[in-house]
Amino acid sequence: MASVLPASKRSMRSDRNTYVGKRFVHVKNPYLDSMDEDILYHLDLGTKTHNLPAMFGDVKFVCVGGSPNRMKAFALFMQKELRLEEAEEDIKDICAGTDRYYMYKTGPVLAISHGMGIPSISIMLHELIKLLHHARCCDVTIIRIGTSGGIGIAPGTVVITDIAVDSFFKPRFEQVILDNVVTRSTELDKELSEELFNCSKEIPNFPTLIGHTMCTYDFYEGQGRLDGALCSFSREKKLDYLKRAYEAGVRNIEMESTVFAAMCGLCGLKAKSTLIKPQTF
Amino acid sequence: MASVLPASKRSMRSDRNTYVGKRFVHVKNPYLDSMDEDILYHLDLGTKTHNLPAMFGDVKFVCVGGSPNRMKAFALFMQKELRLEEAEEDIKDICAGTDRYYMYKTGPVLAISHGMGIPSISIMLHELIKLLHHARCCDVTIIRIGTSGGIGIAPGTVVITDIAVDSFFKPRFEQVILDNVVTRSTELDKELSEELFNCSKEIPNFPTLIGHTMCTYDFYEGQGRLDGALCSFSREKKLDYLKRAYEAGVRNIEMESTVFAAMCGLCGLKAKSTLIKPQTF
Repeated sequence: MASVLPASKRSMRSDRNTYVGKRFVHVKNPYLDSMDEDILYHLDLGTKTHNLPAMFGDVKFVCVGGSPNRMKAFALFMQKELRLEEAEEDIKDICAGTDRYYMYKTGPVLAISHGMGIPSISIMLHELIKLLHHARCCDVTIIRIGTSGGIGIAPGTVVITDIAVDSFFKPRFEQVILDNVVTRSTELDKELSEELFNCSKEIPNFPTLIGHTMCTYDFYEGQGRLDGALCSFSREKKLDYLKRAYEAGVRNIEMESTVFAAMCGLCGLKAKSTLIKPQTF
Repeated sequence: MASVLPASKRSMRSDRNTYVGKRFVHVKNPYLDSMDEDILYHLDLGTKTHNLPAMFGDVKFVCVGGSPNRMKAFALFMQKELRLEEAEEDIKDICAGTDRYYMYKTGPVLAISHGMGIPSISIMLHELIKLLHHARCCDVTIIRIGTSGGIGIAPGTVVITDIAVDSFFKPRFEQVILDNVVTRSTELDKELSEELFNCSKEIPNFPTLIGHTMCTYDFYEGQGRLDGALCSFSREKKLDYLKRAYEAGVRNIEMESTVFAAMCGLCGLKAKSTLIKPQTF
């Protein structure tokens, strides 16, 4: 994996560690404080079984992606970038007691896999946010890294999401709470988008743009693919849909960004963005 | 893992192999026939790279579940049940080239993991259905096995789903196709439900019932849990919701059954059901 952060940005990142403002990661659940123990079921961690502040208190960056193998590769890459090669401990899966998610920590960077789709990343985010809250983490930046389908852009282009939209090109996430539908905002941090975009300009041959990312519940019928087990639309209808998506500002399609934006926005992970490298379309 | 199939049912299962009617697994996509190659991306299989009829043509039963480890354990269990211990080949992950899903085959039984949530199982089902179609499989029974939250039933009870309902207790799956919403039926095969229920009666201490299964997009806010990072409802509202679910016939909650029922129903996997062992609530 090639280095993506130029030297100048590496030093900038060090500055962040001396940042004095404290934005704590917070939960929005009045019941949590009164609980004797909080078990993070799908991460195989808990407040009674693990010393979460000692394990995670220094986390400043969280990177999430669908595939376990890629997140391990990313953690190894960060270990090298942060010059932590000399550390005695290997990169081990912190969630080894479960096969739902995989988690790796290297210095202040936490890397976690989230599987595919909104429900899968949503479970992980609930438990990750509680973990960061229990560990009393502050000023945490979270970035989702993943593959996606690009629309009207060259393959290999990196899209930094400014806003996540749903299948109807609306900047919203519809959360079903019991049997009520609540609409949440999916705007992402503008400052971080610009910061990441500026980083990209310093790297040769690293085509990058800022645009809207469309999040669907389905990979085949939902994204206009003609090669699923089910396909009821024509090639023309598909192209018309993708054209309308492009006109609405969409530059790529994936399956997690709306709930990612909504949940992080509600819980004080203020500096966040999604960075996606389109592969197909 | 204890044996769940009594001897009488094992022989009945053999009868099925001699069944002469042929219900082929079919796709509903006019574009597939004209494709030179069909790549099943997330299974790391394809029509040009693999001889799918030779590899999978004898498949009669497909069992799917969220966790890779559990599906491997299930495949090993079936190997023993089918008295295939003497087979030279080990149980190996057929999708070893990807970490998205895990697949194991033992005799006529295929076991596949699907991750968590509707989008994740939906991707796998599209590619599994195409696989069974390309392999010219017929008379295939598919069963989803997984944990779930029971409602108003003793922990450990197995629920055999007769019909999957959404968060509003409706027997439907709303599929977004491009930007249109299409409603699909979520009814499951009645005959198989009865067959599985009769099996359970022959096993001592195996509490089992047939009921509706509710499928949600979210584990925490969607299922009335009070211990997520976000919780905006009262304990009373939660209990009222679960009570209304019970009155509507719901006996357990999970996160995949509606799309499982809808897709299998459309593609000729006629003999199917969901069998779930509730753990919590």
